[in-house]
Amino acid sequence: MSNKQVIYREEVQLSLKETHMEVRTSSKRLKADKDSGTIAVKNLYLACDPYNFHLIKYSTKLGSPVPGYGVARVLESGHPNFKKGDLVWGVTGWEEYSLITAPETCFKIEHADVPLSYYTGLLGMPGMTAYAGFFEVCSPKKGETVFISSAAGAVGQLVGQFAKSLGCYVVGSAGSKDKVDLLKNKFGFDEAFNYKEEQDLDAALKRCFPEGIDIYFDNVGGKMLDAVLLNMKLYGRITVCGMISQYILEQHDGIHNLLNLLLKRVRMEGFVVSDHYHLYPKFLEMVLPQIKEGKIVYAEDIVDGLENGPAALIGVFSGRTVGKQVVAVSRE
Amino acid sequence: MSNKQVIYREEVQLSLKETHMEVRTSSKRLKADKDSGTIAVKNLYLACDPYNFHLIKYSTKLGSPVPGYGVARVLESGHPNFKKGDLVWGVTGWEEYSLITAPETCFKIEHADVPLSYYTGLLGMPGMTAYAGFFEVCSPKKGETVFISSAAGAVGQLVGQFAKSLGCYVVGSAGSKDKVDLLKNKFGFDEAFNYKEEQDLDAALKRCFPEGIDIYFDNVGGKMLDAVLLNMKLYGRITVCGMISQYILEQHDGIHNLLNLLLKRVRMEGFVVSDHYHLYPKFLEMVLPQIKEGKIVYAEDIVDGLENGPAALIGVFSGRTVGKQVVAVSRE
Repeated sequence: MSNKQVIYREEVQLSLKETHMEVRTSSKRLKADKDSGTIAVKNLYLACDPYNFHLIKYSTKLGSPVPGYGVARVLESGHPNFKKGDLVWGVTGWEEYSLITAPETCFKIEHADVPLSYYTGLLGMPGMTAYAGFFEVCSPKKGETVFISSAAGAVGQLVGQFAKSLGCYVVGSAGSKDKVDLLKNKFGFDEAFNYKEEQDLDAALKRCFPEGIDIYFDNVGGKMLDAVLLNMKLYGRITVCGMISQYILEQHDGIHNLLNLLLKRVRMEGFVVSDHYHLYPKFLEMVLPQIKEGKIVYAEDIVDGLENGPAALIGVFSGRTVGKQVVAVSRE
Repeated sequence: MSNKQVIYREEVQLSLKETHMEVRTSSKRLKADKDSGTIAVKNLYLACDPYNFHLIKYSTKLGSPVPGYGVARVLESGHPNFKKGDLVWGVTGWEEYSLITAPETCFKIEHADVPLSYYTGLLGMPGMTAYAGFFEVCSPKKGETVFISSAAGAVGQLVGQFAKSLGCYVVGSAGSKDKVDLLKNKFGFDEAFNYKEEQDLDAALKRCFPEGIDIYFDNVGGKMLDAVLLNMKLYGRITVCGMISQYILEQHDGIHNLLNLLLKRVRMEGFVVSDHYHLYPKFLEMVLPQIKEGKIVYAEDIVDGLENGPAALIGVFSGRTVGKQVVAVSRE
């Protein structure tokens, strides 16, 4: 069986480049095994997430396929939870066919009457991240003021819409005029600004939040976090979902304004979506009807073909991508 | 009526110096007033807290007495909660006699069978800070590892003892050999180190916490906080009680390791004791028997006379003080 793969070929240091990856074709036979409980899958859609960087840097051997979240169809199952023909989403490989050795970490797709690619984003890990991060970690209340960085990304756009649906005042930052337009005109944010065009982030936040910020959903860390700390309201909450501005720095930006945690009694909390996956059925129950009724707007950018995968993934880190970047391996 | 006072006489910038204060004698008549509900008190003991700096810098006019927590006897009352002869603790002035304009913020002392000076520390604001900060904000569990900075201070020594009594492993840092000895030999800490003698705070923490830190009770902020972030365990908690290392800096130290909040799902939270004062009766119920049974060790350093107050207060900021610094205005 011929298997086109994106191979991790050169040790990544601070930032991932296309040259760290290479597309080649293997012909190894993948066989699901009852003893070890593996499943063999055909990959359909692959997600381009900041999380890929972590997976690559900390848990991938040189010469192995790039790992990441994806949607796949089961070809052969050695695991009691799955049978041939099932659709699943979870961590798979950047290749046409994968042998998944821990299928218990995959979710079976029970609702296929929405675009399957959504399970790489809105209905997958980023959707659950937005849901758990906002509703579980931020403790939001109607009428509160919410700021979201990297707001046009897969997670941010959903957090903003969840917050609006709860009756919050919502502002997002992003890195281009196109993204800012998307936030204001498509995702229904009350305000948005391009952080690259602001001389003074503190001033930009004060303009958007004259009364201060109740909730900051932090996807970027660094200088934006430092400016936000100056603008938090009493008993505010900062949920640390990502610090994408920091991953690529050898020496992380210094944060100078943490004294505001004390002055304003702010709670700042890091969270990881995998701690909240038990809420996935509850999340689907909320979000599937909203999708079908058109109440949730979702932007994705799908490129076809594994060979275009590396460039698409790099785009997420460079800020080039608008909305959820997906690689279609096979549209079946 | 002659009234010796410590007057705030010169605008403080970054750090408080003795020259910002001046001892002089006024002869203004203090009269409690039923219409405004004031009380006139004779001050007995005054607390030297880092909090004095905040009170001075942010809410004291030049020419007024230095404010701070203290223990006082009511001489005349215009407030229904208090009568002549009552003992109270709360924010008063650094002077022999004060007119307290918001006596509802004072606590009546119901238990005078312990040293009255304790109400400036163990049984007052610092005691409640330790109690609420540890039990309410840190969410401690038996067997967890606890690190306390500025551990020989009024709050730190109590947090350590509360943590030990709960069955935690407790380590403290302080700024002199004497204080480290006190922590290990008097307050029952499992380990302690002198941060001024450590080349590498991260290494010192790794030596004391080979498995990492569950709870960090932060009294200092800055470089210690940054080193602690590298050593937090999964689901750890950092309670920000003070950042004394930072108050005196024009540009606060940069904190570079916040990414660990995300990697370790750490919750970091600022708190202010006044939000927890409703728990004061519950606190007394726990701590009074422990004091009487000698289960709590408490170190205080009492200097006599208002004229020695400014030097004593500066000692708290310079790290010279061991234990709770108190100024006895009158031992009655």
